Amino acid sequence: MRIVVALGGNALLKRGEPMTDAAQRANVAVAAVALADLARDHQIIVAHGNGPQVGLLALQGAAYAPDTPWPLDVLGAESEGMIGYLIEQELINALPDDAACATLLTRVEVDARDPAFDRPTKPIGPVYTQEQAESLRASHPWTLVADGKSGFRRVVASPEPRRIPGLKSIRLLVDNGITVICAGGGGIPVVRKGDGSMEGIEAVIDKDRTSALLAEALDADALLMLTDVASVYRAWGTPQQAAIKAITPAELNAMDFAEGSMGPKVAAASGFVRAGGKMAGIGRLQDARAIIEGKAGTVISENAGPM
Amino acid sequence: MRIVVALGGNALLKRGEPMTDAAQRANVAVAAVALADLARDHQIIVAHGNGPQVGLLALQGAAYAPDTPWPLDVLGAESEGMIGYLIEQELINALPDDAACATLLTRVEVDARDPAFDRPTKPIGPVYTQEQAESLRASHPWTLVADGKSGFRRVVASPEPRRIPGLKSIRLLVDNGITVICAGGGGIPVVRKGDGSMEGIEAVIDKDRTSALLAEALDADALLMLTDVASVYRAWGTPQQAAIKAITPAELNAMDFAEGSMGPKVAAASGFVRAGGKMAGIGRLQDARAIIEGKAGTVISENAGPM
Repeated sequence: MRIVVALGGNALLKRGEPMTDAAQRANVAVAAVALADLARDHQIIVAHGNGPQVGLLALQGAAYAPDTPWPLDVLGAESEGMIGYLIEQELINALPDDAACATLLTRVEVDARDPAFDRPTKPIGPVYTQEQAESLRASHPWTLVADGKSGFRRVVASPEPRRIPGLKSIRLLVDNGITVICAGGGGIPVVRKGDGSMEGIEAVIDKDRTSALLAEALDADALLMLTDVASVYRAWGTPQQAAIKAITPAELNAMDFAEGSMGPKVAAASGFVRAGGKMAGIGRLQDARAIIEGKAGTVISENAGPM
Repeated sequence: MRIVVALGGNALLKRGEPMTDAAQRANVAVAAVALADLARDHQIIVAHGNGPQVGLLALQGAAYAPDTPWPLDVLGAESEGMIGYLIEQELINALPDDAACATLLTRVEVDARDPAFDRPTKPIGPVYTQEQAESLRASHPWTLVADGKSGFRRVVASPEPRRIPGLKSIRLLVDNGITVICAGGGGIPVVRKGDGSMEGIEAVIDKDRTSALLAEALDADALLMLTDVASVYRAWGTPQQAAIKAITPAELNAMDFAEGSMGPKVAAASGFVRAGGKMAGIGRLQDARAIIEGKAGTVISENAGPM
């Protein structure tokens, strides 16, 4: 099968862990082993998130020169470089000797009039204490909101991905058997101006939505979203909570999910399957192969069973 | 002709200009027009430097978390993301509507025993005053040396590029008519370990040397190194100073050039032509097309004349 795998940015810089090179490298190495295992039997295209990383890069820039911030499109591009390199290196180390990997910077077109620009929802960077959050609010034009029980995070606009301008290159590499890493951080957000030219815009696109768009455009069989939860649950946080093994898009769409976490995954999964994709899977990184085999995670398909 | 164009990192963040997003975007837009003009008649592959940018990223990281620095391989990857994105965007805006661009992260293998690791020579980041340089020396394990008449710069190891592991993907894209941006900052430096696996190493490879290696590997006709000087000069800084219009590698190798600036360009040009390349050109960004036509800059070839 041709599988687009979307790897959570949080799986690489984990909540609660220090945001260091050593921590990220160790996590990427673990992820690469799971991806390489999947790549033994399938053609994989790897996309990844960048929430913690792009927020960290913004903090670094602000720490050095608070008055001349670097915009989120450029920081997103930096995060594609940082994370893409680490994934490529560890993946090539984990794959057979004759495998080839390529990491492409990926611009993704969004609509400048997307209502998401008026309502920031995408959390980036570390989790702050209330005191840190108040200090950051005072010194930066950032939106910080409560996250979890006691933390705060910066949130930014997350418009819907519309088009992948560089799709031709991705397809060419994929069709020639190269394992492609692309669309990092949901892609670098750009808009088309009145004169037809493209320019960057400040946002962080949801990587699951972009991965669904990519999977559809590449005629992938499966979209696999890997995160730190084992599956999608019914009645999450209630006594009736239960893992969903298999479900159709219609059944899934009748349920409610949190906007910042499971919501985009569920929407991406439904959208991909409704557009003709054979299956979407949601689950833990280490279960990548098992999810595709219907033995772990949640599988979304029209026949509600594993492939 | 197939031309590998090496764009100076200093052409994008200029000495003396503020290191800001606005300054870099404006410079990239100018560079893109010159590159697009060349691309009308030739197949171009764009490589670029990252000296100012990778040093800036190191400063940003150190400003936020001085005790957990990010290594130069990761910062180099970030700079490939940052600069590659800006070039791709402006280049696609300057090229005809049906053109396609792709930007590839590019790991470049070096030898861990390269003597360059004991002798840092590559300047990165901004130019500092003596006071700033002393303060940085006191707070970071960095080597800072005099640069120009009154400035100081951080210098890092710059080992010789040996191999481009991702060459297959670059070639596939180039052979299919896609304008490729790659090998940014001379490539992300990696070494091969005893067990055959690859890992990053702290260095900044010279982008002109990597561009020569790339040009050779892609069977390019020409290697064009664009910078802020009009040509190579004989007897630079003396009353006998004279621009060189055309020269053979043998004549060029008999002359002496400064290690940090013209030296690597001259070595790259000679090496490429000696390895069978038709011509190498050195000159100003805005003269790109004129250099290829033998009307500006310095042309290095075995017949010492323009193509």
